[in-house]
Amino acid sequence: MSGRSLSEIVGLFGGELLDDNGVRVSQAASLETASPDAISFLARDKHRSALAATRAGAVVIGANARDATRLPRIVVANPYAYFARVAQLLNPGPATEAGIHESAVVEANARVAESASIGALAFVGERACIGERAIIGEGSVIGADSAIGDDARLYASVVVYPRSVIGERSILHSGVVIGADGFGIAEDQGEWVKVPQLGRVVIGADVEIGANTTIDRGTSSDTVIEDGVKMDNQIQIGHNVFIGSHTAIAGCVGIAGSAKIGRRCKIGGRASVLGHISIADGTTISACAFISKSIDVPGIYGGSYPFSEHREWRRNAVHLRHLDALAKKIRELESRLAEKEG
Amino acid sequence: MSGRSLSEIVGLFGGELLDDNGVRVSQAASLETASPDAISFLARDKHRSALAATRAGAVVIGANARDATRLPRIVVANPYAYFARVAQLLNPGPATEAGIHESAVVEANARVAESASIGALAFVGERACIGERAIIGEGSVIGADSAIGDDARLYASVVVYPRSVIGERSILHSGVVIGADGFGIAEDQGEWVKVPQLGRVVIGADVEIGANTTIDRGTSSDTVIEDGVKMDNQIQIGHNVFIGSHTAIAGCVGIAGSAKIGRRCKIGGRASVLGHISIADGTTISACAFISKSIDVPGIYGGSYPFSEHREWRRNAVHLRHLDALAKKIRELESRLAEKEG
Amino acid sequence: MSGRSLSEIVGLFGGELLDDNGVRVSQAASLETASPDAISFLARDKHRSALAATRAGAVVIGANARDATRLPRIVVANPYAYFARVAQLLNPGPATEAGIHESAVVEANARVAESASIGALAFVGERACIGERAIIGEGSVIGADSAIGDDARLYASVVVYPRSVIGERSILHSGVVIGADGFGIAEDQGEWVKVPQLGRVVIGADVEIGANTTIDRGTSSDTVIEDGVKMDNQIQIGHNVFIGSHTAIAGCVGIAGSAKIGRRCKIGGRASVLGHISIADGTTISACAFISKSIDVPGIYGGSYPFSEHREWRRNAVHLRHLDALAKKIRELESRLAEKEG
Repeated sequence: MSGRSLSEIVGLFGGELLDDNGVRVSQAASLETASPDAISFLARDKHRSALAATRAGAVVIGANARDATRLPRIVVANPYAYFARVAQLLNPGPATEAGIHESAVVEANARVAESASIGALAFVGERACIGERAIIGEGSVIGADSAIGDDARLYASVVVYPRSVIGERSILHSGVVIGADGFGIAEDQGEWVKVPQLGRVVIGADVEIGANTTIDRGTSSDTVIEDGVKMDNQIQIGHNVFIGSHTAIAGCVGIAGSAKIGRRCKIGGRASVLGHISIADGTTISACAFISKSIDVPGIYGGSYPFSEHREWRRNAVHLRHLDALAKKIRELESRLAEKEG
Repeated sequence: MSGRSLSEIVGLFGGELLDDNGVRVSQAASLETASPDAISFLARDKHRSALAATRAGAVVIGANARDATRLPRIVVANPYAYFARVAQLLNPGPATEAGIHESAVVEANARVAESASIGALAFVGERACIGERAIIGEGSVIGADSAIGDDARLYASVVVYPRSVIGERSILHSGVVIGADGFGIAEDQGEWVKVPQLGRVVIGADVEIGANTTIDRGTSSDTVIEDGVKMDNQIQIGHNVFIGSHTAIAGCVGIAGSAKIGRRCKIGGRASVLGHISIADGTTISACAFISKSIDVPGIYGGSYPFSEHREWRRNAVHLRHLDALAKKIRELESRLAEKEG
Repeated sequence: MSGRSLSEIVGLFGGELLDDNGVRVSQAASLETASPDAISFLARDKHRSALAATRAGAVVIGANARDATRLPRIVVANPYAYFARVAQLLNPGPATEAGIHESAVVEANARVAESASIGALAFVGERACIGERAIIGEGSVIGADSAIGDDARLYASVVVYPRSVIGERSILHSGVVIGADGFGIAEDQGEWVKVPQLGRVVIGADVEIGANTTIDRGTSSDTVIEDGVKMDNQIQIGHNVFIGSHTAIAGCVGIAGSAKIGRRCKIGGRASVLGHISIADGTTISACAFISKSIDVPGIYGGSYPFSEHREWRRNAVHLRHLDALAKKIRELESRLAEKEG
């Protein structure tokens, strides 16, 4: 029988099962797109009308909404996270055959676990170590002396420079480049001398890195990404950066060299972090903000120029170059008026 | 005889031919760089002095400038677009041999049209379908169950994840990644649970996508790029995004998840669009703007901080943190003065 | 005997040797991470406490700090640049075997120097020319008619489109795409016609280009990067751009089409330069600035919105849409007060 029963799911992940009608679910979907063989979820009250209209066969729901539907439902503390786990269960991903594709090139002294899968046209360098059940995608290049952890998954066309470390269960999407040289140059009479980048990139377990993100190797110590960090696409991480565990970083963020990002931070899309500064654990940074100084007290920080109709923006923006004069004029008016008032 | 006569060109694309002297053109170039065997164009009046000085053998010109030169010329309504078509005619690109390069890896049950070309060291996954005359560049990876339309061209090192659809005549440049997982994570007690990304990327016909641009697959429905959309390099498109037909997007733009961009929009370089918002058809967005709310009325929108000499900027910018206090002080002065005035 | 004596180093690079105790150094490291077999450096006075605590066996130091330590030391004018050269000497990089890997595909009429190294699964197109001792990394693709200079190094998965030129000793990191089509499109009745991109990319000697950076080919003339330019990761360079020699560009910078950047400029991370403008030689641009007009006088230019606590930012930013009204009100108050003052 295909799919999973709700009691099976509750057996695995917990939760309170209400109004079970024996439905078996084989897919996970949003309330709007779910078909009767799918399980869905309600995470926010504003989606209650979608709940009323859904065709889903079952839903995951919070305690506060336990009576919001008569559908078969699982009541849990965190419906979205619970739903994510159920969706993983129902979508294990295609089975990948263990073994080295005949078109791949694996250096003789690399160590590839028997249960690992090396895709077509991939390359594994000297003394590199590929863990149990790890998957190296088509055309990926694993540099010499690198270590890829058990159950890690590298999609197609990932590049890992020599001596990098990727932790267990981490996921690297296509176009990711780990361990390229940091931007270390010394000025000498108007020209530049390259400073060799001798450190490594060390990535923990359960990290996910989005497509075309780049993480540079350290100068003399390492660039470190701790366990459970999640990164979106096209993020740039400079040399010697430290990112604490379970921090989440949205797309297009840039973090300059030697910055230290705390644990469990949330960084919005396109934000920029200056080099050599520190961000406290638990800090949230808004999209498009430029963080130019250290943040010692966790909180929500941001700053981006608001958009408006183009001519209106130009009319207003011209004053930005005279704010100091404007502020002075106000102080002057104040003192003149005070004098007047005696 | 090499090149094309002007009457041949007019026969193909229309326009009024004036002062033809039998010249044959074999190249298309700007007024400044054209040699006597080249055709050029005048699109804006400000380039009339370049017209006077050009060595071009012929020009494409608007009706308002029909008498601005005695050179052989083709008078048309839209000189730049006409010139673009002539340039395409004169530069058909190198002929690519049909067939599968012996170093490519094509899974047994993939379907590759006989007229298609699969480059060296490329990979085509199971059940993928490569259309007539499609070109897959060296080292590109086409995931299982993908469909590449007739006459599509993927340059070297493109990655297309499984189940993606690329329309006819679309062009994908090197480093493009189509269909990587969207950034879907559910927070659970300070850690993150991955939300499986089950949708696809569906790209229409006549789309062009610049180098290293990334387009993520949808969460449960699809990410959709309609016909005729043109994208520059290093653009990031989040999961579930919809981009309407014939919209043009300049380099480094980021569009966050579930945003809906209308048809025939123009988005300037480095602009950012927040997730879950809608942009009306025909909207223009200026370079570097951060669009943080939906735009319902088409128009030109923008907003970016103006640059200035560094110390001047710092002197002015310090007041941005006190604008609210400044505005209050002005109101206060107003009321004190009003009182004074009786 | 392993490592280098200080007198050997001074023999190669100059400088004054003080308190030599015969130490041989085999590594270069920061003051904090150096072990006794390493040489370090002091470039700024603020690191004097690190100097006092270092375990380094020797240091490179400026004349002003010649007596700041009793360690064996080399006194020079520019300690950081000197250190960089010593670090290069001590870290020559792994020897790469000359020759073409058996899995690489090299077209019959390509010309590959015998001393060059073509990595596994790389591709070299027709009539391409690979210089002496040049290294082409695994999976890289060199287009037809390209020229890669002597001693150039391309890491894994670099793509060079046809007809590009890369100068001697230049370094291209993984994911770099050179010579993709510029974003040239002509509007025609709400749709777009592609303008063929017929120019090339010409890159000088001693250039370094960071991971996933993209440089587009010119429209009819060339995109030009002069000698000694240094670029970080994820930079986007549009078509027809010119970058003068020895300019350094930090990560995530975008330079739009036909911009002309002078020599010996310094451009901070995430800065954006509008198309068709010119930047004077020797100009410095701050991180995150949007340069929307030409800069004729060298200096330091910048402009970015300062971040603050999120609610504070929102409270202040709301006034940015009314700055013009605010400025008017101040002028009005001024004239009312002046009247009052008689």
